[in-house]
Amino acid sequence: MNLKPGREPIKCQGMESVYGSADLTFEHVLQARSRIKEHIHQTPILTSNYLNRLIGAEIFFKCENFQKAGAFKVRGACNAVFGLTEQQARFGVATHSSGNHALSLSYAAGRRGIPCHVVMPRTAPEAKKDAVRGYGGIITECDPSTSSREQVFERVQAESGGEFVHPYNDPRVIAGQATCSAEMLEQVEGLDTLIAPIGGGGMISGTCLTLSNLAPSIEIIAAEPVQADDAARSLLAGRIIADDAPETIADGLKVPLKDNTWYFVQRYVSEVMTASEQEIIDAMKLTWKRMKIVIEPSCAVPLATMLKYPERFRGKRVGVVITGGNVDLDQLPWI
Amino acid sequence: MNLKPGREPIKCQGMESVYGSADLTFEHVLQARSRIKEHIHQTPILTSNYLNRLIGAEIFFKCENFQKAGAFKVRGACNAVFGLTEQQARFGVATHSSGNHALSLSYAAGRRGIPCHVVMPRTAPEAKKDAVRGYGGIITECDPSTSSREQVFERVQAESGGEFVHPYNDPRVIAGQATCSAEMLEQVEGLDTLIAPIGGGGMISGTCLTLSNLAPSIEIIAAEPVQADDAARSLLAGRIIADDAPETIADGLKVPLKDNTWYFVQRYVSEVMTASEQEIIDAMKLTWKRMKIVIEPSCAVPLATMLKYPERFRGKRVGVVITGGNVDLDQLPWI
Repeated sequence: MNLKPGREPIKCQGMESVYGSADLTFEHVLQARSRIKEHIHQTPILTSNYLNRLIGAEIFFKCENFQKAGAFKVRGACNAVFGLTEQQARFGVATHSSGNHALSLSYAAGRRGIPCHVVMPRTAPEAKKDAVRGYGGIITECDPSTSSREQVFERVQAESGGEFVHPYNDPRVIAGQATCSAEMLEQVEGLDTLIAPIGGGGMISGTCLTLSNLAPSIEIIAAEPVQADDAARSLLAGRIIADDAPETIADGLKVPLKDNTWYFVQRYVSEVMTASEQEIIDAMKLTWKRMKIVIEPSCAVPLATMLKYPERFRGKRVGVVITGGNVDLDQLPWI
Repeated sequence: MNLKPGREPIKCQGMESVYGSADLTFEHVLQARSRIKEHIHQTPILTSNYLNRLIGAEIFFKCENFQKAGAFKVRGACNAVFGLTEQQARFGVATHSSGNHALSLSYAAGRRGIPCHVVMPRTAPEAKKDAVRGYGGIITECDPSTSSREQVFERVQAESGGEFVHPYNDPRVIAGQATCSAEMLEQVEGLDTLIAPIGGGGMISGTCLTLSNLAPSIEIIAAEPVQADDAARSLLAGRIIADDAPETIADGLKVPLKDNTWYFVQRYVSEVMTASEQEIIDAMKLTWKRMKIVIEPSCAVPLATMLKYPERFRGKRVGVVITGGNVDLDQLPWI
């Protein structure tokens, strides 16, 4: 399948200031793809006969755990960083993130040679903090709540003057994440369903942007922890419901939807499925054991929901985004 | 590169009885390749910029941890099982193994629909025993020493009448393992060195069989734990030195060389390098962390030696066989 400019323009907050146009279109995904190409991996698709039999579906795992910086977030971060003018980039970039966006933005900024300021919850895995510092990121810690994060970030950004790249609500980031499902469509034919974890909704929004343009018949399902089920409740209520500090092992999925990602979720996501903490841990361990790949708790959530509701997927060709592999190996949830 | 029948016939004990000819040749590798094709995966090659920079070499990891049954040993096991005549196969197969050969032979026998009797040390990881049973293998436990294993096995074989498939000294097994490096030569051009772990020497012997025929200029290095360094001492002494029960975290590498594998090692292996237990654990954890793949302690040994002696590999294109991924996830050596 060749990627073609899409038909469907999408309203996205902040488009004017970052892109100088009012609509986010598939043209921006194509731009992103060529812009980030030399900075990222085209990640492989893995399959497992064992899991196929267990669920009764044909499952295609898009392994973004093998991605640069260990997660899909490097796509959006690179698109944002390498799209900046010299003028915009002069004080570097700044963000807040529960982990992988911090890592990815540090990686991207490092490659461009500009500073990267990140606000991270002090409870984030040490492995992630070390990795951020390894890529040259400058960390300021906050409390593990949305309100504290936003407060601390405001100060950091004011002091540094860095260009704010929001971890998921930024249209440049959404266009970058959209390149993942675009790649998948080239790697796997005839998908019926695509399922990905949902936290703030950047990956899901990018997926919606690509599929609504290139393959609108593919059903999009989001998966999240029962203990951070704000997206499921939002979809039910028809408006964003944001919890301040949900507790879940899936540390990448604690953040709430924002206006741009909500725009995509309410229009294109057919269902938000949920899994318990134990179901997530079991799915994570099963993936390590049978597929021999290291994946984060966050990206075990889709498989956890598939194992919980196999009848929902039976007989289908299902794409699953394995979003990242940055795990603290000294703190495994089943030990 | 196309595989061609090789030039170099190799004397191998037991050839007459299993192949009806006196020499093991590259022709047997080609036979094995077509015989096992539908039962195994062509595993991918992974690379890591991080590890390349760390060691100063270009490293190509042949990921047999993604292989059927989780290890390269399924190649030799399938070649042996599917090469049996109906008459030879009528009481199934029998073997002793520290783990992956047991698993692989059970898998192969299961696919052919014949019974598989395996003698395993009672200290083998529970994950491996469970997996053997999962494939239908019938386990008899022995003490963790070569002498106990051989004693118990004699009884099991006499009682079952199963065709003995030795885990590494069997020419059918060596020819099967040889298909791994044959695949590698097609996947990676211009290798200078190939390094693989050595226990009983089945993988290394297969590698010697392939490379001595197809690419004799590629240097072959074996890697083993300091605490089970019988191959290094054998090469130094010019004869097989076998320890009865070495203790190492690399549970796949405790077994000694035998006549057929010794034949290959003494002729074609340029060096046996060793690493300590801590160096093996560190290399294993580093691989999980940076490459996001689950590998056994045994196959971390080559990387451990490369990290220990980087100058030995600097500037070279090095193939590394990641031999397996069957780890007890509840018993990680660094926790």
